[in-house]
Amino acid sequence: MNIPIDEKLKRVVIIGAGFAGLQVAKKLKRHKFQVILIDKNNYHTFQPLLYQVATSGLEPDSIAHSIRTIIKQTHNFFFRLAHVHDINIKENKIYTNVGYIKYDYLIIAVGSVTNYFGNKNIENFSLPMKSIPEALNLRSTILQNFEYALLTNNKKEKERLMNFVIVGGGPTGVELAGALAEMKKYVLPYDYPDLDIQKMNIHLLQASPRLLDGMSTHSAKQAFNNLKDLGVNIWINCLVKDYDGKVVFTATGHNIESFNVIWAAGVKGAMIKGFFKEDINSKVDRILVNNYLRTLKYDNIFAIGDIAYMVSNKYYPNGHPMTAAPAIQQGNYLANYFNNCLLEKDKINIKPFIYKHFGSMATIGRNKAVCDFNSLKLKGFLAWIVWMSVHLFSLVGFRNRVIALMNWIIQYFQYHKSVRLIIRPFNRKKEKNNK
Amino acid sequence: MNIPIDEKLKRVVIIGAGFAGLQVAKKLKRHKFQVILIDKNNYHTFQPLLYQVATSGLEPDSIAHSIRTIIKQTHNFFFRLAHVHDINIKENKIYTNVGYIKYDYLIIAVGSVTNYFGNKNIENFSLPMKSIPEALNLRSTILQNFEYALLTNNKKEKERLMNFVIVGGGPTGVELAGALAEMKKYVLPYDYPDLDIQKMNIHLLQASPRLLDGMSTHSAKQAFNNLKDLGVNIWINCLVKDYDGKVVFTATGHNIESFNVIWAAGVKGAMIKGFFKEDINSKVDRILVNNYLRTLKYDNIFAIGDIAYMVSNKYYPNGHPMTAAPAIQQGNYLANYFNNCLLEKDKINIKPFIYKHFGSMATIGRNKAVCDFNSLKLKGFLAWIVWMSVHLFSLVGFRNRVIALMNWIIQYFQYHKSVRLIIRPFNRKKEKNNK
Repeated sequence: MNIPIDEKLKRVVIIGAGFAGLQVAKKLKRHKFQVILIDKNNYHTFQPLLYQVATSGLEPDSIAHSIRTIIKQTHNFFFRLAHVHDINIKENKIYTNVGYIKYDYLIIAVGSVTNYFGNKNIENFSLPMKSIPEALNLRSTILQNFEYALLTNNKKEKERLMNFVIVGGGPTGVELAGALAEMKKYVLPYDYPDLDIQKMNIHLLQASPRLLDGMSTHSAKQAFNNLKDLGVNIWINCLVKDYDGKVVFTATGHNIESFNVIWAAGVKGAMIKGFFKEDINSKVDRILVNNYLRTLKYDNIFAIGDIAYMVSNKYYPNGHPMTAAPAIQQGNYLANYFNNCLLEKDKINIKPFIYKHFGSMATIGRNKAVCDFNSLKLKGFLAWIVWMSVHLFSLVGFRNRVIALMNWIIQYFQYHKSVRLIIRPFNRKKEKNNK
Repeated sequence: MNIPIDEKLKRVVIIGAGFAGLQVAKKLKRHKFQVILIDKNNYHTFQPLLYQVATSGLEPDSIAHSIRTIIKQTHNFFFRLAHVHDINIKENKIYTNVGYIKYDYLIIAVGSVTNYFGNKNIENFSLPMKSIPEALNLRSTILQNFEYALLTNNKKEKERLMNFVIVGGGPTGVELAGALAEMKKYVLPYDYPDLDIQKMNIHLLQASPRLLDGMSTHSAKQAFNNLKDLGVNIWINCLVKDYDGKVVFTATGHNIESFNVIWAAGVKGAMIKGFFKEDINSKVDRILVNNYLRTLKYDNIFAIGDIAYMVSNKYYPNGHPMTAAPAIQQGNYLANYFNNCLLEKDKINIKPFIYKHFGSMATIGRNKAVCDFNSLKLKGFLAWIVWMSVHLFSLVGFRNRVIALMNWIIQYFQYHKSVRLIIRPFNRKKEKNNK
């Protein structure tokens, strides 16, 4: 992979520049390690705001930041744009689409992918929202289906084009349902006056008995009521069994016609080839690690973020939540461990990693959000301001914050989403035929 | 196409929502006509700033604006997202990918496409920049090739990856060359410290003896010197004969190795099927119109903007320049003609269309531009401020102006382009393989 070998320094290879990988890459001391960061994108994605890209609220440049801008120190640091194919644990090598590379220490921070729970139909026909291209595709599909709805007189087809089904009542599903409901209220009636927008239905399907499983019942109830007020149809205890591209089939026998099914029902680790059965939790495709984030069998391989599954974790027996906060804390922990303990002969007595949960939040829409901070529960306008501030300050880079803030302010006063652009990829053949 | 017929009103179908089509669509009186606007995109593109999207200066949302937002009056106005396949002149019908539609009057404002002058090799291997997907593709290709340059030790391959050839010394070529040269100066050395950025070469190839053929020799000279100062290699009298994806072959025998060839050497009309040989100027694929912008043989068909070629035009014997200004003026003229004269029994003596040229300008980079306003010629910082102001105020919509201005201000002080994101389209298959 064309990276010079430094005889004096141990080489640490980090796979993935999400919240976890980026933290450790930023903080590893360059006089102790040669640091190599690999990602399939040249940017870091702020995933909590992906739903705003999908619903025309923000452009990708507000929630993505070039990795080479984030990590400017270049001494002993190398970023490589590459897809990792697999790991050869025996030979301490990883293979990528642009060649292989050897490592002394490997940190796996590849994150997660959408979990379809093995249902190939759902995987083929529903719309995921885990990456920027997926969010852009979702946006274009939503807008395009309204254009198509204008053109048809077939009642069933129109129904399918204007029905939206969001599967999964976690924060992603709730935020997406809220954003779609606001589009229905403030944007679409003006864009499509020839359509009867009342025929647009937004369905939120949740398999468990309540929304926002990870938050307090108080906040879940609040979110439920806010979404109801916005006109969202919420179906709890409603497990989706199948989707054939036209009809969503649920376990309760209640079926919904729709061309727009957004799958936000779960994630699993973005498992990487090379591990053995006993190294992973195959139910959720996560790599088993001990309380120090080290894999159980391989002394020089670590895992952090969504892909890591800490065994014997008394606070989180099913693994840490697959969200930004544990990832960031694990990245910090591991950087500290590498910098201060890893190479020392007399290893200091390092404490195991313990995740500190500061709170969780979800936004439903204009002036509406819910926040849980231990005993403090916020709702409504105040929660919404807190949600905005936290997300704004979490964005990477001054420019991204300014642009996102500008967009939010303009939308707040103009009541409409500004970036309703259907931008389909450049395709040489298609462009030629369609001039 | 599912549009109700209004017995009392004549139906005007406008194809294309560029500068020309948008003007006429906005201004046609709805109590006199049923207005139908068709475009293959749901947004209007501000083409003069496409090069900034291609060089990471702006995101598409700054230069594109949703058509449904621009034209809010909905009474007797219909926008349809469709690709027009051909026109049946006899039956007053146009055929699209979403069905056909009949017209009483047809206004063709389809604009232009890249002109490869019949060279299939160049068409296949070079990069065009006439649409937002093309500009995004160009941006990703430039950034990706730098990533690839990091990975290779093959001298020839590295040279090809880091050599940039811009063919065409008009405003587009000049602005693109300037923007690339600034990336070389301010951005790339910091992003790619392992690469010797001095090995990046930017070549601007112009077939005629000077740059900016449409502008004054004074401005052309100024642009030439500014580009030289920025390190651009300018080749005049240098006609490109062929390009095989690796080497650009010129008529003078001077060949350049490059994977990055940007074709800005010309445009031609985006000709639409259905016309006869004698209806068009087949050299430039433009539709012949009289001095009233009406096609020569068909009383109810008009053409405006880049696609229109006015015969017997004493000021512009080779047709009007294919730029925004004539398109906007023609759109205005035609709207006025339709509103006030077309349906009158005693046709008022309408004056023929005469294009008023107010000036032309091109920017080269930071504090550097050239403007020609009749006798007034500007250069340097003042010209740059004028260029920025004119472009900012020409952008559609308050939000686009604010976001573009913010981006320019931040870039001005930070000296780097912020949106260096390689965003490749969502592709279900690829995503799966590459997790």
